[in-house]
Amino acid sequence: MSLSEFDLIRAYFADIGASRPDVLLGVGDDCALLRVPPGRDLAVSIDTLVCGSHFLPGDDPKTLGHKSLAVNLSDLAAMGAEPAWATLSLTLPEVDAEWLAAFSQGFSTLARRTGIALVGGDTTRGPLSISIQVQGFVEPGKAMRRSGARPGDLIYVSGHLGDAALALLAKRGVPVAPENLPGIMDRLHCPEPRLDLSARIRGIATACIDISDGLGADLGHICESSGVAALILAASLPLSPAVRDRIAATGDWGIALAGGDDYELCLTLPPERRAELESAIAGLAIGLTPIGTVEAGAGVRCMMPDGSVSPVTGRGYDHFR
Amino acid sequence: MSLSEFDLIRAYFADIGASRPDVLLGVGDDCALLRVPPGRDLAVSIDTLVCGSHFLPGDDPKTLGHKSLAVNLSDLAAMGAEPAWATLSLTLPEVDAEWLAAFSQGFSTLARRTGIALVGGDTTRGPLSISIQVQGFVEPGKAMRRSGARPGDLIYVSGHLGDAALALLAKRGVPVAPENLPGIMDRLHCPEPRLDLSARIRGIATACIDISDGLGADLGHICESSGVAALILAASLPLSPAVRDRIAATGDWGIALAGGDDYELCLTLPPERRAELESAIAGLAIGLTPIGTVEAGAGVRCMMPDGSVSPVTGRGYDHFR
Repeated sequence: MSLSEFDLIRAYFADIGASRPDVLLGVGDDCALLRVPPGRDLAVSIDTLVCGSHFLPGDDPKTLGHKSLAVNLSDLAAMGAEPAWATLSLTLPEVDAEWLAAFSQGFSTLARRTGIALVGGDTTRGPLSISIQVQGFVEPGKAMRRSGARPGDLIYVSGHLGDAALALLAKRGVPVAPENLPGIMDRLHCPEPRLDLSARIRGIATACIDISDGLGADLGHICESSGVAALILAASLPLSPAVRDRIAATGDWGIALAGGDDYELCLTLPPERRAELESAIAGLAIGLTPIGTVEAGAGVRCMMPDGSVSPVTGRGYDHFR
Repeated sequence: MSLSEFDLIRAYFADIGASRPDVLLGVGDDCALLRVPPGRDLAVSIDTLVCGSHFLPGDDPKTLGHKSLAVNLSDLAAMGAEPAWATLSLTLPEVDAEWLAAFSQGFSTLARRTGIALVGGDTTRGPLSISIQVQGFVEPGKAMRRSGARPGDLIYVSGHLGDAALALLAKRGVPVAPENLPGIMDRLHCPEPRLDLSARIRGIATACIDISDGLGADLGHICESSGVAALILAASLPLSPAVRDRIAATGDWGIALAGGDDYELCLTLPPERRAELESAIAGLAIGLTPIGTVEAGAGVRCMMPDGSVSPVTGRGYDHFR
């Protein structure tokens, strides 16, 4: 393969993602030139996926292209930001045209669907790794920070929890009913950033985070930033049949409480705004389930179905543990 | 070492870089929240440094912290943008407190000096790699693109060329006079982004690029984007005594014409604006040297001291060759 780095970038990444009039100059100069709309602030997040830590060498490059952008978009969703631009830094052990074509296709399909323009990139030789930075717009004062939860607020999560963790277990040999396998594998490899939901709840939720490291860890971040505690009810957690079966068989709630990679949203809300929330999300395919309440104090606790209350101490999927 | 990822990020990266009022929310939430000043566009660039390709495992972490930010700031300088914000994604094989302290110190010293706030980050376990994205402000229409060079323009470079390439040769055993070693090593490990120069020349230069891959390669990018050719004069190239000695001894102009990592600026300018340029840069420590002219056609050629003219075909330091 004699493609040079420059040709490579041009061939696969010059024309992917959405076209946007606020991109004055895209890929191909020293910098991209971008214009933020008047009256909007910028929300910015960066995430890196490393082969061996976040995915395996044989993983499908198309779903990897999707997932590496999706986990970044999930951060915009958690903030209540509208997606706009992304930059991509790709470190590759070799130039593999088939891999690049599939990766860029997975990336581009999600980028176009969510209105993301790819505005810059960098390609280097080295151990496989993908760094993406996304930027989005928020109305001043409307971003959903982690710090806004107050005692008395209700706690909600979107979708259902634990599927991605169960999929990881299944990949390690834990038996899962065959009819449940495709669903949970899809949840692990193709997470869907909750952008539509995010657009409906901003201005209503008091705090929000996306669940990447597990409910306990991420709700714990809200508690820490807000200076509050949380009590969740295990019996209220929204679970897929696959996860419900697994918990029934093992009695282990860990996949739902501490399993990462679900990329659902966890948010808080004063109880008096509950009706407003319900009408805001009417008609959305993805639901919100109340799972507990915010209290004075610190830390996350869970009331188990037998009535016992335990601290959820797990920090979830922590790359340095 | 039992620091978790979260504590680690907090300990070393929560309080580095400049403080800026346009950072509404910095490190520690799902996104940073940033405010672009009215009447300014955004310039964005991302660059990754990979251990083994761009630096070696034993390299000093403090200078690495400097260099990884400097090469990104050099892209802002090439565009004529005023530095504002950076995000940092760090992939580390292990948690090494001493390494992290030194790296963050090198990063922070340069960030504070250039007005860069660190607004977000991500830390992952894996092969050592550093991705940085920088953002800066430009007045609409004032950015120095690669595409503005026109036949008849003069070509200038800042500082002098080839020191970093000679330093790389010296590390591989090529003899260099001892009195010249510290200077060229400093140029390789601690490049200085030409931000002051950039601020003086924006609005005057017709095109600009930073020399990261070598003069031939990077001037070639200007030629390609602008649809022009370039003729440079070897005898006009600004050289340090160390590089001059090396070329005199070997007759090989490659380190000056194709050596990368200098991070000087290369720019073009209509001859009638020469006096304006000279008065704009008066008093700056770093100089600009005219090295050739823009012509109709394509490609970069160099007239050697013997009068012969050769195409500068080298694409410089290309990670996939």
